[in-house]
Amino acid sequence: MLKLYYAPGTCAMASHIALQESGAAYTTERLDFKTNQQNSPEYLAINPKGRVPALVTDRGILTETPAMLAYIAQSFPAAKLAPLDDAFAFAQAQAFNSYLCSTVHVAHAHKMRGARWATEESSFADMKSKVAQTMTACFKLIERDMLRGPWVMGEHYTICDPYLYTLGLWLEGDSVDVSALPKVLDHRRRMSERPAVQKVLAEEKA
Amino acid sequence: MLKLYYAPGTCAMASHIALQESGAAYTTERLDFKTNQQNSPEYLAINPKGRVPALVTDRGILTETPAMLAYIAQSFPAAKLAPLDDAFAFAQAQAFNSYLCSTVHVAHAHKMRGARWATEESSFADMKSKVAQTMTACFKLIERDMLRGPWVMGEHYTICDPYLYTLGLWLEGDSVDVSALPKVLDHRRRMSERPAVQKVLAEEKA
Repeated sequence: MLKLYYAPGTCAMASHIALQESGAAYTTERLDFKTNQQNSPEYLAINPKGRVPALVTDRGILTETPAMLAYIAQSFPAAKLAPLDDAFAFAQAQAFNSYLCSTVHVAHAHKMRGARWATEESSFADMKSKVAQTMTACFKLIERDMLRGPWVMGEHYTICDPYLYTLGLWLEGDSVDVSALPKVLDHRRRMSERPAVQKVLAEEKA
Repeated sequence: MLKLYYAPGTCAMASHIALQESGAAYTTERLDFKTNQQNSPEYLAINPKGRVPALVTDRGILTETPAMLAYIAQSFPAAKLAPLDDAFAFAQAQAFNSYLCSTVHVAHAHKMRGARWATEESSFADMKSKVAQTMTACFKLIERDMLRGPWVMGEHYTICDPYLYTLGLWLEGDSVDVSALPKVLDHRRRMSERPAVQKVLAEEKA
């Protein structure tokens, strides 16, 4: 049985949705970021990085969203969550997810997590004030060049879709003008209609 | 025929080494970052993100190091550059590479690329002054928990190894005390003895 550690409002929702779509048997455990539970000794024994998500499997523990998403797709191939038989198409899906983790998520993190990369309050404020600009640039690139429609990879729903949906939920909070992102908004609407997404949202908000 | 766009001293060296190890037929094209060639109209047509690496294939263009490394491993399976028949082990390799791209490379980038995330010169200086600390923390975690030895994944050389080697070349420049990283240093030494690495280093330094 798989077990997902997550916290509401974080990128862990991407793996949560993918698990739900995959048909896997899994349980979840919610961490309370308000009490810094991700840095408790108990959780650091699971993920020494003190981050979510983490996925406990029979073979050991996995971290890092792009790796977990590909693992879910490969472990439950009947759900057809990635083009597993086409190395080039699989690489395109992975490139999209890699961009989300290394550029988009990082841009967003400069709003609240400036202490990861700087020391002074003035730097944190400076970083925070640029987040709307960097997130807008990221999502305009996604809108223009990456999101094929109706799903990220085109006709087929893949592991890219819950990840884009999850990070896209941060746009309004990051003061991005979403009216300039009609394809992203259409993608979000169609995602929100999926039963798996509704189930995950209900659990994470409960 | 594959074609790799790279610039010396960048993370593109990971894909360059992996291509050389894979036995693939490939060519390379060097970009000159001093003249900002990565943002020329010609290169932006190849990679709109204005970054290296980019890999031109018969099917189209790939970007993002973790995706390119997995593509090289899957496209040239005889080179055995990843545990392709074991979804869990493959995910562990991908998790390692994802950590390098989203956390380690990002930590390093705050030394010279602060303008990606802030506006003020004082913020850039603050970011730069923290890089030794963040890179030390990243590589101590790699040393303690991730690098199994002799290779990242254990007995078998994989796509994780050229990526770790490439980012590890930045340590001294980032003022990290490498004497506290004996496993990383041993890994670097063994990497530097591989003919593929020597060939790539010679080309990138030429």
